[in-house]
Amino acid sequence: MQANDRPRTFHLTVAYDGTEYCGWQVQPEQRSIQSELERVIRPLAGRPVRVLGSGRTDAGVHAIGQVARCVLPVWKADTVALQRAINSKLPNDIRVKAVRETRERFHPIADATGKQYQYLVQVGGSRDPFANRFVNRVGGPIDHSAMQSAAAKFVGRHDFKAFQGTGAERPSTVRTIHSARWIPRVATGPTGAELEGEHWCFEIDGEGFLYNMVRNLIGTMLEVGRGKRPLEWIDDVLASGDRKLAGPTAPPQGLFLCRVDYPDEVFQLEEPDVAE
Amino acid sequence: MQANDRPRTFHLTVAYDGTEYCGWQVQPEQRSIQSELERVIRPLAGRPVRVLGSGRTDAGVHAIGQVARCVLPVWKADTVALQRAINSKLPNDIRVKAVRETRERFHPIADATGKQYQYLVQVGGSRDPFANRFVNRVGGPIDHSAMQSAAAKFVGRHDFKAFQGTGAERPSTVRTIHSARWIPRVATGPTGAELEGEHWCFEIDGEGFLYNMVRNLIGTMLEVGRGKRPLEWIDDVLASGDRKLAGPTAPPQGLFLCRVDYPDEVFQLEEPDVAE
Repeated sequence: MQANDRPRTFHLTVAYDGTEYCGWQVQPEQRSIQSELERVIRPLAGRPVRVLGSGRTDAGVHAIGQVARCVLPVWKADTVALQRAINSKLPNDIRVKAVRETRERFHPIADATGKQYQYLVQVGGSRDPFANRFVNRVGGPIDHSAMQSAAAKFVGRHDFKAFQGTGAERPSTVRTIHSARWIPRVATGPTGAELEGEHWCFEIDGEGFLYNMVRNLIGTMLEVGRGKRPLEWIDDVLASGDRKLAGPTAPPQGLFLCRVDYPDEVFQLEEPDVAE
Repeated sequence: MQANDRPRTFHLTVAYDGTEYCGWQVQPEQRSIQSELERVIRPLAGRPVRVLGSGRTDAGVHAIGQVARCVLPVWKADTVALQRAINSKLPNDIRVKAVRETRERFHPIADATGKQYQYLVQVGGSRDPFANRFVNRVGGPIDHSAMQSAAAKFVGRHDFKAFQGTGAERPSTVRTIHSARWIPRVATGPTGAELEGEHWCFEIDGEGFLYNMVRNLIGTMLEVGRGKRPLEWIDDVLASGDRKLAGPTAPPQGLFLCRVDYPDEVFQLEEPDVAE
């Protein structure tokens, strides 16, 4: 038996503009990222396939580096050919950026050791017709020093129960955040022309995130940045574990899932039985 | 009689992502940029209005600085208020960037003294889900030195009949091009991540352009850049005046109307009759 005749498990890195989709997850009568991938991969697998993601993204949320798993009963070509075969049938706003083969038991949720998100904010200036799908435009002024201090309060191991969206509660709401910071940026439109307003990117790295957590952190930090709440209020919200005390959920279009990390072991393939 | 009680004529600078529209011009049963503007301005005018553009852009073509004229029978507030009133009702992919009052007889086509277009090309690299609405991706390699030399051949006063699209023929096809050049660029996605492939912007300034002219110039230069035709072929095409000899029309999504120029006089308002 050849290695190529066994089922093979693949790690797909997927980028998408989430604007036109109901989110990652398959939903009846709606277009989702997952359903587009399953539609395209089905003929390659010769049967219906489940494409399992590292986590859901909501309607309007984008990804640069979402990770998904698919298992093909037989795939005799290499990973580049698989990437090309998938991309040739995907709509233009979804793209597989890389394909790697993994061990058979690779699980994109259970095996993930970390994720990075970014969230783009435009403060003031008019709405740009080219950039508005990818940024949350807010009124100013914003106290960036206060926002930076608010971000720092999320770093470390905390119970983020107050920042968990309803509808997907987890048994444990304690998560470790490795870094969280606001980065000023020069934002440009497609031709390179600078966009109006001040532009900031919130970048957060952590071992894992609760449902809607990043958008709830953003909504809460903006309350502080606008001077509606003092910095110490963040401590109170964290300590309370009460979603109702935190700020509103920021809109989806500023959010990008940038990276999902896995240990090297998931890419170490089991030796095939070479018995003939 | 107050100046504010007379009809007032306005110069609108309009930016749009043309992806979802049938083009600038009103077409039955379709969404156009012009029809969106007319729909929004009608209640401000109190009657149907015609919003006249500096020229048509095709389906999928974008603008950073299209110019349009509208006449309001009465507008008592300032231009900033007018801009805000229009923008508050426009879809997110169309935006009025500036409003200036003009003389009554301002004509956006007849008064224009120049235009600038840009056209974005990606050579190689995979399609980016965030950038694909705004760039024409082509296979490589491309000889940029040859493309640059081809561009230089269009500068000056020439008969561009061979580059005129069918369907909107003009009596004279002679136009003066002030500059035409390819500019290498670092292209980035919305989060600032660099896009794959080589990126080039073709920038052209001229007194005026024929229908589809820029896209036909691009398609022709790409023939030279890919080595399918020698540089001297450009001279033959120009001399022939035969559209069939030129290269194919490049796709619309890379094209941006960047600027339309007018002489200062159009912004000099006639003195109102102050007779009371």
